[in-house]
Amino acid sequence: MDKIQRNERIAVLLKMLSDSPGKLFTLGSFTELFGSAKSTISEDIDIVQKLMARFEMGLIETVPGASGGVRFVPFVGKNSIQEVTQSLCAELSRKERILPGGYLYMQDVIYDPQKVSQIGRIFSAQFYPKGVDYVITVETKGIPLAYITAQYLNVPLVIARHYNEATDGPSVNINYVSGSSKKIQTMVLSLKSIKRNSRILFIDDFMKAGGTAKGIIELAKEFESEVVGIGVLIGTVEPAKKLVDDYFSLLTLHSVDEENGIIDIRPSNF
Amino acid sequence: MDKIQRNERIAVLLKMLSDSPGKLFTLGSFTELFGSAKSTISEDIDIVQKLMARFEMGLIETVPGASGGVRFVPFVGKNSIQEVTQSLCAELSRKERILPGGYLYMQDVIYDPQKVSQIGRIFSAQFYPKGVDYVITVETKGIPLAYITAQYLNVPLVIARHYNEATDGPSVNINYVSGSSKKIQTMVLSLKSIKRNSRILFIDDFMKAGGTAKGIIELAKEFESEVVGIGVLIGTVEPAKKLVDDYFSLLTLHSVDEENGIIDIRPSNF
Repeated sequence: MDKIQRNERIAVLLKMLSDSPGKLFTLGSFTELFGSAKSTISEDIDIVQKLMARFEMGLIETVPGASGGVRFVPFVGKNSIQEVTQSLCAELSRKERILPGGYLYMQDVIYDPQKVSQIGRIFSAQFYPKGVDYVITVETKGIPLAYITAQYLNVPLVIARHYNEATDGPSVNINYVSGSSKKIQTMVLSLKSIKRNSRILFIDDFMKAGGTAKGIIELAKEFESEVVGIGVLIGTVEPAKKLVDDYFSLLTLHSVDEENGIIDIRPSNF
Repeated sequence: MDKIQRNERIAVLLKMLSDSPGKLFTLGSFTELFGSAKSTISEDIDIVQKLMARFEMGLIETVPGASGGVRFVPFVGKNSIQEVTQSLCAELSRKERILPGGYLYMQDVIYDPQKVSQIGRIFSAQFYPKGVDYVITVETKGIPLAYITAQYLNVPLVIARHYNEATDGPSVNINYVSGSSKKIQTMVLSLKSIKRNSRILFIDDFMKAGGTAKGIIELAKEFESEVVGIGVLIGTVEPAKKLVDDYFSLLTLHSVDEENGIIDIRPSNF
């Protein structure tokens, strides 16, 4: 193998660090990998740090001392968040989206890789400090968002379903009451999918009364695990009293005026 | 803004090019963006090209002439494919995976961001030449694979569902016969989700007789569109005669011996 150049070291460092958020890498591990001096690697990391800051790819934290090193922390700056949320609101408030019953057509947004990626980065930065072990969602519309958040946090995704299937193996069923329609629904999760004592992040596209989120909290209990975060793309203003207390919604839907074709959706205050 | 350094230009070029597979960028667009000379940009692109080759991130194609430029082409080398498929086979042939009826528990693999990402890169390289407009899948288990393939191809994802919902808006329903169970099933797709005359790639986790794939071909016809590729993680040897002729399976499941706990799964020949 040719001697590795600075440009290449930087590309490798950037990838290794961002692929394992929160993982502490010692400088020694890099000097060994590249066969370079510690001072050279320090300079490389400095460049990676600046690059990440400049393009808002995340932060590099330095832990000093003998057992120290560097680690990647997901981060999105305030300006970027504002840009993303404002552009999403502009897109989602187009009146052609209104469906009978005041529902909004959003599939082109929540299945679009570029938009999903931007939203997932914000979720991962928001929930990284919680020390998440799994990201969970309920089929179907929240799956891309949950998947990409899991990818940025480098943890497994888990999908609860409405019906069980032969490929689930033994599974846990719980019933929950949809907060808005008051209908009883079922959630199924394979027993193998979550280890006991895990910290779980629930991600979904939309939250009205919070019935699904409450169901996930109940489901987590059956796995002796805890929901440490709830993140949704859109939360509604009404009902003001949700079935869960603590959640993060990127956007807030204030109202849908079917008659006049006006959707009032705004970036949330957080 | 400070003058942009080579390291930073390279990071930006790498991101811009790989974010838009197939898109032709003129050198002029980069000289403008960075305020650098053409010769400097040429050298930068040379470095990006080598970096991508070295870390198998993809190819940079150069189109000569006045209207020429450079573009990113998804690519995964034979050795990488072999490494990925062999490690997947080792993982998937663990006997603990066998479920009653000879089914395999695979959720930990098909929902794992790192593995899904590796598989999606191979799918995107395989199907890039087809000129794909949309990636489609049917809920639920193939969604992460389909999503990441769509991301690498930079096209929208579309998800067909089994039941329609208020948030779908007007939709097309088709019935199809599951190839193995012979059961009649329904597939629903929102009318807004696919433009007419599109080229569609179907991605799924598993294919036995090919009933779902055939259903997707029928569904595409209702949108006056064409399925130009079918990619599955695992195809089964039996039945040898599938309901679709042309498909790409990364792995082939030869047999599941429930009694002796032996799963025979191998990288496909392609």
